[in-house]
Amino acid sequence: MDINQRLTDLRELMRREHLAAFIFPSTDPHQGEYVPDHWKGREFISGFNGSAGTAVVTMTSAALWTDSRYFLAAEEQLKGTEYQLMKLKMEGTPTIAEWLGRELTSSTEVGIDGWCSSANEVKTLIADLRKHGGITLRTNLDPLKQIWRDRPAIPENPVEIYPIEYAGESCHEKLGRIRQALREKHADGMLMAALDDIAWTLNLRGTDVHCNPLFVSYLLISTKSATLYINKVKLSPEVIAYLKAEGVGVEPYEDVRKGLADYFEYNILIDPDEINYTLYKSVTREIVEEESPVKRMKTVKNEREIAGFRSAMLKDGIAMVKFLKWLSGYSGKDGISGISEISASDKLEAFRAEQPLYRGLSFDTIAGYQAHGAIVHYEATPETDIPLKPEGFLLLDSGAQYLDGTTDITRTIALGPLTEEQKRVYTLVLKGHIQIELCKFPAGASGTQIDILARQALWREGLNYLHGTGHGVGTYLNVHEGPHQFRMEWKPAPLVAGMTITDEPGIYLAGKFGVRIENTLLITPYKETEFGQFLQFEPLTLCPIDTSPILRELLLPEEAEWLDRYHQLVYNTLAPYLDAEEVAWLREACSPIRKEI
Amino acid sequence: MDINQRLTDLRELMRREHLAAFIFPSTDPHQGEYVPDHWKGREFISGFNGSAGTAVVTMTSAALWTDSRYFLAAEEQLKGTEYQLMKLKMEGTPTIAEWLGRELTSSTEVGIDGWCSSANEVKTLIADLRKHGGITLRTNLDPLKQIWRDRPAIPENPVEIYPIEYAGESCHEKLGRIRQALREKHADGMLMAALDDIAWTLNLRGTDVHCNPLFVSYLLISTKSATLYINKVKLSPEVIAYLKAEGVGVEPYEDVRKGLADYFEYNILIDPDEINYTLYKSVTREIVEEESPVKRMKTVKNEREIAGFRSAMLKDGIAMVKFLKWLSGYSGKDGISGISEISASDKLEAFRAEQPLYRGLSFDTIAGYQAHGAIVHYEATPETDIPLKPEGFLLLDSGAQYLDGTTDITRTIALGPLTEEQKRVYTLVLKGHIQIELCKFPAGASGTQIDILARQALWREGLNYLHGTGHGVGTYLNVHEGPHQFRMEWKPAPLVAGMTITDEPGIYLAGKFGVRIENTLLITPYKETEFGQFLQFEPLTLCPIDTSPILRELLLPEEAEWLDRYHQLVYNTLAPYLDAEEVAWLREACSPIRKEI
Repeated sequence: MDINQRLTDLRELMRREHLAAFIFPSTDPHQGEYVPDHWKGREFISGFNGSAGTAVVTMTSAALWTDSRYFLAAEEQLKGTEYQLMKLKMEGTPTIAEWLGRELTSSTEVGIDGWCSSANEVKTLIADLRKHGGITLRTNLDPLKQIWRDRPAIPENPVEIYPIEYAGESCHEKLGRIRQALREKHADGMLMAALDDIAWTLNLRGTDVHCNPLFVSYLLISTKSATLYINKVKLSPEVIAYLKAEGVGVEPYEDVRKGLADYFEYNILIDPDEINYTLYKSVTREIVEEESPVKRMKTVKNEREIAGFRSAMLKDGIAMVKFLKWLSGYSGKDGISGISEISASDKLEAFRAEQPLYRGLSFDTIAGYQAHGAIVHYEATPETDIPLKPEGFLLLDSGAQYLDGTTDITRTIALGPLTEEQKRVYTLVLKGHIQIELCKFPAGASGTQIDILARQALWREGLNYLHGTGHGVGTYLNVHEGPHQFRMEWKPAPLVAGMTITDEPGIYLAGKFGVRIENTLLITPYKETEFGQFLQFEPLTLCPIDTSPILRELLLPEEAEWLDRYHQLVYNTLAPYLDAEEVAWLREACSPIRKEI
Repeated sequence: MDINQRLTDLRELMRREHLAAFIFPSTDPHQGEYVPDHWKGREFISGFNGSAGTAVVTMTSAALWTDSRYFLAAEEQLKGTEYQLMKLKMEGTPTIAEWLGRELTSSTEVGIDGWCSSANEVKTLIADLRKHGGITLRTNLDPLKQIWRDRPAIPENPVEIYPIEYAGESCHEKLGRIRQALREKHADGMLMAALDDIAWTLNLRGTDVHCNPLFVSYLLISTKSATLYINKVKLSPEVIAYLKAEGVGVEPYEDVRKGLADYFEYNILIDPDEINYTLYKSVTREIVEEESPVKRMKTVKNEREIAGFRSAMLKDGIAMVKFLKWLSGYSGKDGISGISEISASDKLEAFRAEQPLYRGLSFDTIAGYQAHGAIVHYEATPETDIPLKPEGFLLLDSGAQYLDGTTDITRTIALGPLTEEQKRVYTLVLKGHIQIELCKFPAGASGTQIDILARQALWREGLNYLHGTGHGVGTYLNVHEGPHQFRMEWKPAPLVAGMTITDEPGIYLAGKFGVRIENTLLITPYKETEFGQFLQFEPLTLCPIDTSPILRELLLPEEAEWLDRYHQLVYNTLAPYLDAEEVAWLREACSPIRKEI
């Protein structure tokens, strides 16, 4: 990639437009986690392909901000360019506004594409830039239109109807609930840009986005009508008829601004974290600035969705057990011949692909052997791929999309002898995982309150991990679903019965190894007392947790008991679907660690 | 109290002023927790004397909002008046704005004294009232000036210098640090209204406020000058000379608005949660709206302050042990003859008063026997006082002001046989208390993250308490010091080495009993690793925790071990200061619960 030539082209354009700098964030008009190639402008201009990062280019300098997950990868990918790496959350790293304030003469103008950042992000940026030397921001120019000659098109893949037997609630019922929620917020309508919110609302799915069954579109809802802004080539006559029957009209994707201009109600709810700045500024009516009610509605699964999750988890557990048995066949005394991180990932994918209703991966598999396991978002490439050896840890974080549900599971697998440090860290991470599984809490508690239960055993030894402990999981939708999370940072979203959430503490010792253990959980009622309704977690994921690394004396009795109970559940549920050899392997893998049982 | 006559007077004034309603909050111009009598307007107009509550009076109705701590007391005190009780945080309770929106015809005007609510409170109220029928708010009228005929004066008690041997840092050093913090926030000066912030900054103390060694005043700081607005009758020549030497001028209390008008810098930091609305609106320069930097500076104790805390805690522990031994002499087989909640409190106060540098109570003692212990903010009065019997629990939450430090301790004491439920609840609360004591955490974690450690054992049994788990404690200042706390609600203030914080989980079973166990802790460094600096808690409070109610099998080994270690510390530290009989009692009270030791 000739990054230098692209920078030259960009700067020529900047000179013509009298812009002192241009900012390229990693987002798209829909604020998605995975961005269709068309909007990978930051990667185009910098060469850095991580999921999070912002490139900033002045006439004489260039810099890229990213977080600790990507420090190593970014350093590698920026080599030979003029970009300097800005390490987020590290002492001494300037903010973009601070850096620009230093790099530029004051009272100048910089650019950002208003389509590709949320209204809140741009508003914050405008305020920050004003503080740092009175820099102003221009938002109505997309330089990529001119300098990105072979820019990929916006995807035009077909949209399919998501059957009601999996969705559990019809589109018009959901629209009814959304309009009710809008009335409670004194709003007449709303604009949706989040692709998973649109897919959930309409009971439609697509294939426009990597690993996420989404389709590029906007949805504008008013008191009486709903309009889907989408490239009509994506819609079959059947889907158009379905939408009409559900009360949803269709207009071209690029007409969404016209739709906003024609919107005739008194006011409109706009979620400024979801809607991009250009659309936000296009609203002509009064804005009710609030979190989109769809975000929380979507996270609380109905009975059909929960049944779908159980079905998907059963299939995923079967595939995982087949894979683990296959892997263990290689990891005996004779060593692991010929298996690498990539070939192991491929084998696991093949086992999953055999399962009914399989639709693909829910994210790129992370298969990190030993030191690679310490790179939190490692994805093996042909250049980094290494052979597995009969020792140490393979960290395997993977998940699939099935038509009836989405899965996300991490196991850390001992391939042979371990160091004492590996066993100790593994056991401490497992303690954290189990303490979340055991947690009971009053309805309405937030994940910020609960997060420490996964960390306390680690903190007591001076260990920590900097990612969240867990996130929601969609129903044949995004594997990362908000707004609820387990996190050290404040997440006010209350936890509610019917939500899914992952439980995935880890420890990463750079250059040595990584450990993470993850189940996807369902929140269910626990008990009601004079102090209110209490909730609990139920594991949906069905797959043995490697017991061979456990230092038994570090586990509390309740933790060992939970592990044995969980393994009994895994065995009882999966065994009927496995052949005799697999059952024998599973029985061994699920055997209790408490000898007294 | 003739509340009806006062309402009549108020309504006559409201009619003349064309006000449809008047709002009386529980605060004063300094947003203090304890309000001098002069500003007890809500109590005057409603008769309700709890520390938190808001009275609202229309021409035809009256209502009082308070929280669950005061439901019982408020019901009692409002009897025979036209006030209806509005139970905060209960389903169906309207907000003040909602209620006014219903009670009043639209587009009318209501009043509140802009001196007695923070800028943020009034701004929120203005927005809420506008939403509910377009009600407007008038803030420049204090009806109490006219209708409260025997209104107490603003206190005029003398101010004393707080010796540097206890403060550990001189006034001009503190002013230097404050100006540095202001520069970092790009502010030239600030206005202080919080009386504990002013006392801390100036190293002065007073006696204007119940239980808090404060003096009524404002402090205006600019880049080069500092001015104390105070009734000069409170200042001796010595104090005036001291202030002059430290670079602080003195002006009359009522001239603070003039001071703001004359303030000549470019901008001024105003904490809108601290500064009242009237003063906020009196600022003529640009406002930097931020949390006052003094709040956090004050919470991080220096070495002299920590030494003072240890000294105060030693004395407090001696007094507590003398009291507990005295009480146990009565609670043997022969019953407790003649001791009541009030006489027990008085006896404890007498033991404390014997200690050097004793200056008074740090809050009104809570001595709640059996069912009274379930009333979270119970204060025994001659009407409610009951005799202690040789059974059940006495909950005793108390603290003192010593010149070298402030204390806050709760013990729940078994006076004789207990029910199984009492033992179980006691042990679960103790587990929660100990889990906080054992917690290790990365520097910068907030109390919201840690709070659950005190609750998890309770939540597993469907129990909970609705107050915070802990708060900061001042240095011969307020017993409640923010902004850091342990709370279920979000408190972003990071925990830092040198802070004090209480650890006080509890359970309250209405009509039965209450349990709370509280130590005051100091945050100290734990270890530094590749994952950063970790912190821990060290108990400052020195007093045995009753072991007789403990159900040993519910404690984890680490919890029993902590308790034995703590009791060893208490014994070793206090024994040298006690007589032989007291030592014998203490040895018994501190004997290990782990028989193997």
